[in-house]
Order: sequence, then structure tokens, then C-alpha cells
Amino acid sequence: MGNEKQWIVGVDVGGTNVVVGLVPVEGGEVRAFHSRPTEAKRGADFVVARIVEMVEHSIATVLREEGGTRADIAGVGIGSPGPLDRATGVVINTPNLGWRNFPLRDLIANALHLPATLDNDANCATYGEWWLGAGRQAHSLVGFTLGTGIGGGIVLNGEIYHGVSDAAGEIGHMTIDSTGRKCNCGNYGCLEAYASGPAIALRAIEGIEAGETTILVDLVKGNLESITAATVYEAVVRGDTYATEVMKDTAKFLGTGIANIINILNPEMVVISGGVTRAGDHLFEPLRAEVRRRRDRDDRVVPEHLRHRQRLSRHRLG
Amino acid sequence: MGNEKQWIVGVDVGGTNVVVGLVPVEGGEVRAFHSRPTEAKRGADFVVARIVEMVEHSIATVLREEGGTRADIAGVGIGSPGPLDRATGVVINTPNLGWRNFPLRDLIANALHLPATLDNDANCATYGEWWLGAGRQAHSLVGFTLGTGIGGGIVLNGEIYHGVSDAAGEIGHMTIDSTGRKCNCGNYGCLEAYASGPAIALRAIEGIEAGETTILVDLVKGNLESITAATVYEAVVRGDTYATEVMKDTAKFLGTGIANIINILNPEMVVISGGVTRAGDHLFEPLRAEVRRRRDRDDRVVPEHLRHRQRLSRHRLG
Repeated sequence: MGNEKQWIVGVDVGGTNVVVGLVPVEGGEVRAFHSRPTEAKRGADFVVARIVEMVEHSIATVLREEGGTRADIAGVGIGSPGPLDRATGVVINTPNLGWRNFPLRDLIANALHLPATLDNDANCATYGEWWLGAGRQAHSLVGFTLGTGIGGGIVLNGEIYHGVSDAAGEIGHMTIDSTGRKCNCGNYGCLEAYASGPAIALRAIEGIEAGETTILVDLVKGNLESITAATVYEAVVRGDTYATEVMKDTAKFLGTGIANIINILNPEMVVISGGVTRAGDHLFEPLRAEVRRRRDRDDRVVPEHLRHRQRLSRHRLG
Repeated sequence: MGNEKQWIVGVDVGGTNVVVGLVPVEGGEVRAFHSRPTEAKRGADFVVARIVEMVEHSIATVLREEGGTRADIAGVGIGSPGPLDRATGVVINTPNLGWRNFPLRDLIANALHLPATLDNDANCATYGEWWLGAGRQAHSLVGFTLGTGIGGGIVLNGEIYHGVSDAAGEIGHMTIDSTGRKCNCGNYGCLEAYASGPAIALRAIEGIEAGETTILVDLVKGNLESITAATVYEAVVRGDTYATEVMKDTAKFLGTGIANIINILNPEMVVISGGVTRAGDHLFEPLRAEVRRRRDRDDRVVPEHLRHRQRLSRHRLG
């Protein structure tokens, strides 16, 4: 029979979930989209087998619904936490998954008998926003992916900009306060130390411990360690003054990082992805104000558009 | 007669000096290189006439020495402080020169009857380092130009990266301390507020006023306002402990900015230009240490190579 429609398989390997879907080569709706827990603790072989099984399931679903044969699957694009080596398809080191020099791309390609490519997850997310999302065909676009960490991607001239050794876009580790908070990376004052999900929660908890009154305490039944960025967001929506302050501070830190990116790269658009974007105007209003304060240009700072990512963003809020 | 050798005229319009020289289209030594005071206070027409006169002088000198005719002059490349509009050749606003929406490119092109292009001075300096200087043919290169302000340029894939509105590379206004020193631009904590020539001098003076003992005071015969970054450099060379501290702090601030650039762009090379590079290892040793501390990659951070720029850098140290 055969079918002229060609498909790309997308795989997002996250610390919490693996997400798989198919998209037509020419762009369009994501199909047979599903998510399963990564369960990285069960070992790398387990995760690879899970990915392969999920991909086979998505391919079977789409070919059944649309017709066509396996020859209509153009290949697999894998997004993974970095650092990684695109040329060899090897994940060099991902603490969240416990992998070191792991040949993820070839293990998946060989198991599926399909061509595969590997790139940094934040790069893939940013390219997706450029290709089919908030920044369609923009001259240039920088993506901030806010989650357990803060990742970034840069699209210039319609291509991901990788740098000389595939390490470009580490915007979470830009210093915004050279003598500031300690970051997990060992340095001081990284953006990630202020505006990642865990950093938002930590700042909220510190204020409570210093005597702030807030419904956050009730939301977690007094167990402060249970506070997450999502809890802060919930308190903001309920009108809590202190949580709103925490969110405004988050916007200031993020706005500083975005203004830096605009000063350096003058992109047409900055796209913010991740669970924290659910805060909507509670975040974006003070965020844009801070960007304007530091950089009086009318650059566009927008939330992500890709709905499927949005739907899953809860998992990434950390 | 005619001559097959083609030449490009380079013009650097600075707040202090205009510098002109010719370079072969295929690259090589700068010829008929000379510098004259800009004297911007005498008005824009005066400056344009001075530039035109200098260019005519350089062209006449080279054609006399090398043979050839005016047809061997391919065109004029003009570097000016920004912001500017490359498409129209208009300088939008340069406080140092007092120009607003000034059609610099066409005034020069018309007076010389030669094609001309206009670009940001720091972009030109960085492209020069990529073309014929410290970063020849590097995959990617970011230039920091340290003077009265801190400019920057980005060369990717052998081309200057301009951003969506010719405003990329404003690395002097990246925030390294979000609640830090006030910058001339009105914001707080810009790199320029710590590591420009005037900022280095200001930090040195503040310490003296706070009681530091240093030969800087003798070098300016007690007139603290006369201290410049060059004075600090001179004191460092003479072994002054306090001036060495000021230089080390400068290296830390610059190192933070460079580490940010490496995190964001992962360039093959970072090239530092301007008078402050005369401090040599007094600057580059603590600078590289700070970059390594914040970003443990073996990226190359080097001083500029273009000798003519080096010779003139004194004028730019502010």
C-alpha cells in the first residue's frame, strides 16, 4: 500500500518522564503522544527498552490510524539532558539519569532499525517553538526552559546554534549576582540558583522561616519541605501576598537573565517554557517590566505555545 | 597603468581619535595607517571632512608606493559607536560624538565617490581579530573591547552576528550583579560599571578615599581625579599591592562576564581588546582563573593580536 505522508518520531528523555510522539515531516499536530515515568533508577537498559517500546507503540498507532508502512518513518529525534556529543550520539553526563558516556542514540537506532539523532533537550524544545510554536520562523529565538534546572536553546537562521563543542545555551548558569546564592554547579549567583523550580521553593521557605505569614504553610499542612514552585503558584492564584512577592522576585531574576540575553544576542523573540509559565500574568507582567527596566527595547518575551509541552509541564516544575 | 592589487579602506571613528588605514582585500599588513583627534566638539561636518581628508591621504600614499589607480580601491568600511542602522548607514545615537540620526555612511561615500559600509566599532574590531588577528578562522569568536565603555562583537560562521535589529553584542550591559553599582545606562550591576576604564579608576579612587595606602596617590601628585585605568596599570607594574588588588578585582568582574558568554555561546575563542590588555599576565592570569572557576571548560581567552589596534589602545583606556 504505502503512504506518501512521512513522520518523525520525537523522544524527550526527562529525569521524571519519557515522552514520545510522532509529527509529520512537514509539521502539524503531534500524534500518538504519550508519557511514561522514566524510572531511571531501574538502570539505563531499562530506560532504553522503555523508550523503544514507547516508540514502537506510537508508530503502530499512527500507521494503523493513517495507513502507511514503516518506510514512512523518516527517523527518530531524541532530546536528552546534556552535556552530550551530537557527532557520536553519546550522552556525556546526566546526574538526573545517572548516565556517563552513554551511547543513547545508537542503542535506540539499532533497536528500532531507524535512523536517529541526539540533541540537548532544551535545544529541541527551543527548535520546536521556532518550528511549530511561539516563534514560528522568527529571525532568531532564545528559549528558556524552566524546571528542576534552567536550560536554554538558541535558534539562529533557522538552525539550532550549538557552539564549538555542543555546549551553547547554558543560560541557567549565567551569573546574575557574582557574589550571590550558591548554585548546584558549585558557582555563585547563577540564574538557576534563583529561578529554577527548587530555587523558587527554597526562597519561599526561607521567607517563611524568617517569619513571613502566608497560606503556603496551610497548603502543605505545615510541612514546609513539601513546598514546590507549584505550591507557590497555587498560593499566588489564591491572592496570597507573600507568595506574590516570591513570584515577583522570580520575575526580577528571570528578567535580569532575559535582559542579558537581549543585550548579547538581540533575538527577535525570547520564549519561556516550563510549568512556571502557568502563572501567566502573575509572572509575565513583572517579568516584562524588569526586562524593559534593564533593556529599553521592544523585544518580545512570550510563553511557549506547544500545547503538548504545556500539558506536561507540571512534571517539570520540580 | 592599473594594478591588480585591490584595497579596502578602514575607518575607526572613536570619541577621541579617528583612525584610518588601508588593507589588501585578501588580507595583510595595514598600510598608510594614521590617527588624528576626532574633535567632535567642532561639529559633525568637521569630523566628516577630517575623515574624508584622512582617507584621501591614505589612498594617495598607498597608490604612490604601490602603483595602481583609484579603481583599485574596493571601498570603505566605517566602524562607529552604535546604535546604528546598517541598512541605511545612519548612526542613530552616539553620546560621545553628539550625533543623532546622522547619515555618516552616505556623507563619506558621496564625498569620496567610493562605496562604503557602516558597522558598529566593536563588531569591526572583533571581525578584524577573526579575519587577521588572534582568532583567525575560528569556528566562533566573541570580542570584548575595553575602553571608556565595554563593547562587544560576535563572529559566527565567519560573519558578524548582528541580531534582529543590529543591536547584538552589547556585552558591556550584561548584568553581573543585579543589585550592584549604577551604570551610566541607568541600570544596576552592568559589567561596564565595574570593568570599563573609568570604572576601574573609580573603584581605585573609592578605595583610596576609604584609607588604602598606594603609590597611585604619588603618581597623580595627590590629585585623585587624575587617576585613570592607565595609572592603575602603571602602579601594578611597579608592584603596588593595592593597585594589584584593583586589577585582580577587575579580572574577577571581567571573568564573570566572559564565563557568562561561554555559558551562553560556547565560542571557540574570546578575544579581549583595549588598553587594559597591556597589563598582560597581571590581568589575564586572574581572569583565566575566574573563568575556570565559573565555567570549567578549556575555552581560550586571549588578548587581541592586531598590532595597530594595540598601539592605539592607549587612547581608548579612558
